Amino acid sequence: MNLDEFKYSKGKKFNYKEFDTEAKALNLNKEIIQAASVLNLQEMGKLQDKFYAYGKESLLLIFQAMDAGGKDGAVKHVMSGVNPQGVQVNNFKQPSKEEMAHDYLWRCIKKLPEKGIIGIFNRSYYEDVLITKVHSLYKDFNLPERCKKDIIEKRYKHIENFEKYLTENGTHVLKFFFCISKDEQKRRFKKRIDNKNKNWKLSESDIKERALWDDYMRAYEDAINKTSSSYAPWYVIPADKKWFARFFVSEIILKTMRAINPQYPKTNKDTEKLIQSCKKILENEKN
Amino acid sequence: MNLDEFKYSKGKKFNYKEFDTEAKALNLNKEIIQAASVLNLQEMGKLQDKFYAYGKESLLLIFQAMDAGGKDGAVKHVMSGVNPQGVQVNNFKQPSKEEMAHDYLWRCIKKLPEKGIIGIFNRSYYEDVLITKVHSLYKDFNLPERCKKDIIEKRYKHIENFEKYLTENGTHVLKFFFCISKDEQKRRFKKRIDNKNKNWKLSESDIKERALWDDYMRAYEDAINKTSSSYAPWYVIPADKKWFARFFVSEIILKTMRAINPQYPKTNKDTEKLIQSCKKILENEKN
Repeated sequence: MNLDEFKYSKGKKFNYKEFDTEAKALNLNKEIIQAASVLNLQEMGKLQDKFYAYGKESLLLIFQAMDAGGKDGAVKHVMSGVNPQGVQVNNFKQPSKEEMAHDYLWRCIKKLPEKGIIGIFNRSYYEDVLITKVHSLYKDFNLPERCKKDIIEKRYKHIENFEKYLTENGTHVLKFFFCISKDEQKRRFKKRIDNKNKNWKLSESDIKERALWDDYMRAYEDAINKTSSSYAPWYVIPADKKWFARFFVSEIILKTMRAINPQYPKTNKDTEKLIQSCKKILENEKN
Repeated sequence: MNLDEFKYSKGKKFNYKEFDTEAKALNLNKEIIQAASVLNLQEMGKLQDKFYAYGKESLLLIFQAMDAGGKDGAVKHVMSGVNPQGVQVNNFKQPSKEEMAHDYLWRCIKKLPEKGIIGIFNRSYYEDVLITKVHSLYKDFNLPERCKKDIIEKRYKHIENFEKYLTENGTHVLKFFFCISKDEQKRRFKKRIDNKNKNWKLSESDIKERALWDDYMRAYEDAINKTSSSYAPWYVIPADKKWFARFFVSEIILKTMRAINPQYPKTNKDTEKLIQSCKKILENEKN
């Protein structure tokens, strides 16, 4: 499925009000999409094995969403298709004291995936231009005043440069915004209230943040529009239907991995000698 | 002493052949310089205490030099003046396997100083545009070919952006190149050969790298000229006289810290209440 209309590279503007979180125009069929998801995961698993063996590049998947946007489910979905040894998931919650004592990218950089690895950031340094902007958190940061001036604008630029740096070092950066409607969030919150086994997922702060929905959407628009680039595009997923959001993610990962086209390392003469000598040792083993 | 002539901000070009590593024009008097160094260290110690308590900014000192250039001695000298709790020294030698599996800034970023701390990098990510350039090490890097194209030029830009990011996050970046003559290196190597207690400091690779002196000087010129900026200037130290190189470093650190002008946090009403209550508890202690 061609999902290019949901890809935001430099220039294309994301506007929440004009965005259809249900993707009605696609006339989606749940059964077909779910079947396609299964096939995607199978192919992804095979490509990931090669990607790991190839070991020259890494893949960084950034998942951002409002609460109940479906990030966790998507992480689970992706993970179900791949060898967990080749994937690292990191959740970035409220920063610790040690993290706050460093520059804001520090905690994320420490967790960047090694070559051959798929890294998933469940939330990321984008929180530093989202919640930080909506609540003007930077006003209380332990920073000299000159650093607080235009801090959000400066951060867009830092992030743009940082993602360019990553790309030029062999890391593919894919950014996903799971975009749901305010009504859909309400429905999901209600489920969390009605289902005792889901109560733990709901917190008072979720409800408080919901009241700031419009501010958050504006912050997302700005973040996406200021940091979309040819090398690190944003994908805005119509995420009201969970099964479609999951399919969407697998489709984009797959497209990216196919383009990377990872190959198993070639057996050169030295390796072949080694392999043959290993074979002999094994064959000559007594009992 | 005004050392501005050795400061390289954007625009000013460093040229090794025209550089006087003995700083003859300054008519330096060893006794006076050493006395001034002692005073500098005393003042630095006091300012560092405030800097630590203030805790809003950090200071990153980058030391680069050819072998026997005097980096280690300078580190020792700076450390003798300050509370070691507020200083972190990091040596960056040949990268480990884990480090090589990440982007090249990764290992240095992990070691960035927290707010209130002075971080010293004894060698740094500049090695990635020095030795890497001189030996074309990148040819064997485990990177896709597209990332190897113009890699050194790209890295100058990464570094420039990265240091801007640091500055905008409250880290002051000072970069020192301990610039000695080839003859002076020979004298120092000979001392290491003649003095049994210094033999351990000499390695065969030092002698091999010395043969590439001119290539290294060109790499230093490029690195300095491409990454000098108003926010992260380079200082090229005439370093043939160790006592002057050490004084030089203390003088620049001091100038920077005076400009930062760190202040002890003010005691507000809440803190004062707390202090008074602590006082009472101590006074009421029995025995």
